[in-house]
Amino acid sequence: MDVGFVGLGAMGRAMARRLLDAGHSLRVWNRSPEPVAALVAEGASPAETLAAAFDAEVTISMLADDRVVERLLLDEELLSGARAAVHVNMATVSPGLARRAAELHAQHGLGYIAAPVLGRADVAAAGNLNILASGPTAELDWVAPLFDAMGRHTWHLGEDPAAANVAKVSANFLLVSAIEAFSEAAVLAEANGLAPAALLDVLTNSLFPGPVYAGYGAMITEQSFEPAGFRLALGLKDVSLALDTAAATNVPLPLASLLRDSLLQAIAHGHGEQDLAAISTTSRTRAAL
Amino acid sequence: MDVGFVGLGAMGRAMARRLLDAGHSLRVWNRSPEPVAALVAEGASPAETLAAAFDAEVTISMLADDRVVERLLLDEELLSGARAAVHVNMATVSPGLARRAAELHAQHGLGYIAAPVLGRADVAAAGNLNILASGPTAELDWVAPLFDAMGRHTWHLGEDPAAANVAKVSANFLLVSAIEAFSEAAVLAEANGLAPAALLDVLTNSLFPGPVYAGYGAMITEQSFEPAGFRLALGLKDVSLALDTAAATNVPLPLASLLRDSLLQAIAHGHGEQDLAAISTTSRTRAAL
Amino acid sequence: MDVGFVGLGAMGRAMARRLLDAGHSLRVWNRSPEPVAALVAEGASPAETLAAAFDAEVTISMLADDRVVERLLLDEELLSGARAAVHVNMATVSPGLARRAAELHAQHGLGYIAAPVLGRADVAAAGNLNILASGPTAELDWVAPLFDAMGRHTWHLGEDPAAANVAKVSANFLLVSAIEAFSEAAVLAEANGLAPAALLDVLTNSLFPGPVYAGYGAMITEQSFEPAGFRLALGLKDVSLALDTAAATNVPLPLASLLRDSLLQAIAHGHGEQDLAAISTTSRTRAAL
Amino acid sequence: MDVGFVGLGAMGRAMARRLLDAGHSLRVWNRSPEPVAALVAEGASPAETLAAAFDAEVTISMLADDRVVERLLLDEELLSGARAAVHVNMATVSPGLARRAAELHAQHGLGYIAAPVLGRADVAAAGNLNILASGPTAELDWVAPLFDAMGRHTWHLGEDPAAANVAKVSANFLLVSAIEAFSEAAVLAEANGLAPAALLDVLTNSLFPGPVYAGYGAMITEQSFEPAGFRLALGLKDVSLALDTAAATNVPLPLASLLRDSLLQAIAHGHGEQDLAAISTTSRTRAAL
Repeated sequence: MDVGFVGLGAMGRAMARRLLDAGHSLRVWNRSPEPVAALVAEGASPAETLAAAFDAEVTISMLADDRVVERLLLDEELLSGARAAVHVNMATVSPGLARRAAELHAQHGLGYIAAPVLGRADVAAAGNLNILASGPTAELDWVAPLFDAMGRHTWHLGEDPAAANVAKVSANFLLVSAIEAFSEAAVLAEANGLAPAALLDVLTNSLFPGPVYAGYGAMITEQSFEPAGFRLALGLKDVSLALDTAAATNVPLPLASLLRDSLLQAIAHGHGEQDLAAISTTSRTRAAL
Repeated sequence: MDVGFVGLGAMGRAMARRLLDAGHSLRVWNRSPEPVAALVAEGASPAETLAAAFDAEVTISMLADDRVVERLLLDEELLSGARAAVHVNMATVSPGLARRAAELHAQHGLGYIAAPVLGRADVAAAGNLNILASGPTAELDWVAPLFDAMGRHTWHLGEDPAAANVAKVSANFLLVSAIEAFSEAAVLAEANGLAPAALLDVLTNSLFPGPVYAGYGAMITEQSFEPAGFRLALGLKDVSLALDTAAATNVPLPLASLLRDSLLQAIAHGHGEQDLAAISTTSRTRAAL
Repeated sequence: MDVGFVGLGAMGRAMARRLLDAGHSLRVWNRSPEPVAALVAEGASPAETLAAAFDAEVTISMLADDRVVERLLLDEELLSGARAAVHVNMATVSPGLARRAAELHAQHGLGYIAAPVLGRADVAAAGNLNILASGPTAELDWVAPLFDAMGRHTWHLGEDPAAANVAKVSANFLLVSAIEAFSEAAVLAEANGLAPAALLDVLTNSLFPGPVYAGYGAMITEQSFEPAGFRLALGLKDVSLALDTAAATNVPLPLASLLRDSLLQAIAHGHGEQDLAAISTTSRTRAAL
Repeated sequence: MDVGFVGLGAMGRAMARRLLDAGHSLRVWNRSPEPVAALVAEGASPAETLAAAFDAEVTISMLADDRVVERLLLDEELLSGARAAVHVNMATVSPGLARRAAELHAQHGLGYIAAPVLGRADVAAAGNLNILASGPTAELDWVAPLFDAMGRHTWHLGEDPAAANVAKVSANFLLVSAIEAFSEAAVLAEANGLAPAALLDVLTNSLFPGPVYAGYGAMITEQSFEPAGFRLALGLKDVSLALDTAAATNVPLPLASLLRDSLLQAIAHGHGEQDLAAISTTSRTRAAL
């Protein structure tokens, strides 16, 4: 397909490459020029302007957060001039923004699909993302080949444009919950003479197989938080997104509140740019370990 | 081997049967007579007294909690008269009790092994328990054939008799944490138009494979808590054990505190005899769902 | 003095009347006309425009929140055309807004004083407010006669324009904390056979004299939350302001997080328009009382 | 009256002296002999045995906690041999213990009054305690002259022997709540440029007059925790008593859970023997101040 691609951070770059490898034609745009040049060297063509990235059959964007998406893409002139039939927004944004975005796109005759992903940059590079998608079924089916090139599985979560973002916000809240839980358990174990690594070995081979305990657990037992696969400060952004989404519907999430406080403490103690696993330093500080 | 077996509740019965099936000779004792009769019909011999169950090469016990273990087994007369060389205590008890028990056994020349398990009665019946064991290595090796008959894997967690109990207490704390986390996420999803079952489907096939999300998640999305595979009131006992173990070493566990409050609320609302998954009713009540 | 007054809600009206009674000359502005007419009947003159309310020696404003202050008053044209030498902002706004406001006022040669108050409308009517003020000392001294007419005491909290708002945000957080604490204690007492009113009687005459326990405590023991002296939804606004102010400096406030969750639950259960004391319904729901 | 007095710690000594000063006849008992000698020098007579302290018209006890009361006083032989008509237990014990004690006393024809107090040793020395009393009215009236000698006011909280202990447990929970709340607010203020002492000055002269903010607030703003007027470790005992009392009736107290975790952290960081105000170190650690 003829694809415009906006946002070439670590995730965006990896995803764009997968599309090139699958034989799609890519017109790429990024705020800074270096990533554009790199992709062009691999076969993409450069979009001189954001509008040029919307002069395609379908446009995919992978930007940082609500603020950037709102400022760059929710622009009447951009959307009204777009040739693209569908815009696939793969960023982690708030469900509220997704609803506003879908409405604005509809006013300009443009389809909107929310498709945030689970997986870090290395997972994206391997084409193994889990893609959480919601929007009109016909349009989801139409862009399925693109998702197939980027992910191992695409979840169709219904027509509501916000549904995929609700799922993504929930998943990230659960991810941080699991890390806080193991952090507390590791301190409980260590203070009582059991090596956290021994506890982790039991857990990953019994109750908690899967990537979360295995990956974050190892960083916690080693208290090694660099390089940051997923920055702790971004974890605070995601937990805050969960709290705000919940509050907008009068839903208390006491566990998310606890996570927010643990993350703030970790940032106060200088761990904001380290990996999310550094939330475990808060548990250690509590126990004076 | 020639084994004495004390405590024929749902778990104990299933474990004893596995030993019989593996060709071991069993002398069984229970407070009430019916389970004894059932096991005798399957090839065990009855122990008329507790002391008779300690007239064996090795004695295994699977009792309810600290109180029962303390009252029945930490008895000078019983231990001093025992022929058994080793007592394997497979109950979920406090690390503190394990230390006191090991000391008392040693005074009477009896080995003590802590070996609590992960898995419900159906898992025990299939011989698929995860056995968390600690104590002297030579004795652990000696009783290994018994563990092999009852479990899919035995974890040697060191010589400290309390280590296995620390691991078990930690694992149960993490189990309840995961259930609370998904309960909150399910409410967040539902209040924002995403079916909790759709969220669960994503999670069990991406971040959170394994038995916890799959098993408890289904009960939560269906709000169906009977029959109780693991009673909620027992979950409160386990979380309290984690809090007490932590407090004894001045370790704050704010997530365990939150779990305790959620469980207490569920009990106040009448869910104490239902499955642990009913902790999710607390999240729903918070949001007036 | 020749005073412009902006914002004639319940608080603003009562404060403006105190100034009239003390002999000051008032030019009053409000979004809706009725309160203006009422004050004019008592001797004020009407300001046809916001700008006219800044055509005075000093302008006092008493608006709802950050959003309204930002939209109406942080206006380059308004501030550059003002004759007033000083603008006294008595609303409960964020410290961040106070800093931005002070800077913008300075650019237009206008002094800025932050002076939020402690006390409800009946306290304002009696001239018994506690006024928390910060800003340049000379200007604070100059407007002191106005504060004297409105309050029982003015606290000079330093030159930093944000200081008074920090104090106000902290005080409101402490107010809600005390109410949550007594709410939990009242349930503890009731569930154990002690009437909450008897407990309250002890407390107000020993550890906790003063208006908070006496006033809110009575509403809690009677579970009577109307009319709302201070709306619960406003309490959530204030606690959120404390959390946001804290988060901006990486300060975790776990007690404020707990209050936010209790307030959200109360709103989910339909108590948002009732008095703040209705936060106690959350404690009762937790215990199934 | 002819009074037996058991327990001459700092509180007991001060209270016994007030009784002597009021002209009552005292027979005093203590585990260690020095305090007995001191009181005898002031006019008391020594009780050679605990039983001798119950050979009086009325016996007052002021012991440390449930464990000590249970071990020393809930003794069939002691109670059956007592001449005293009434035993007034002024210790802070659990409501559950009060009920068991009242029943056991009744079986031996002895009246039981629960009368814990609010106030530290200096308050006791001045005869200014607040006495929280419950039990049979006739007996309460009979011992009123003793209470009048020790306190500024006696609160009759009903016939239920546990009621006074419920009130005391609740009051102490509220005391620690207020200290945690101000601790968090002080950090919020400091991190935002407002001196905590300035905030405290506002609060004690507006919303929060009374001894709690004035006394503990000063220690917190000065971060000065010695000598300990009330040891932090005792504060943990009291909060745990509140949590246990609540849990026995399925009442969640999330604020008490938070206090417990803050206190445990303070103890882990070495503040257990300092004044309760040192709970504020936990808030400072959270914010890396």
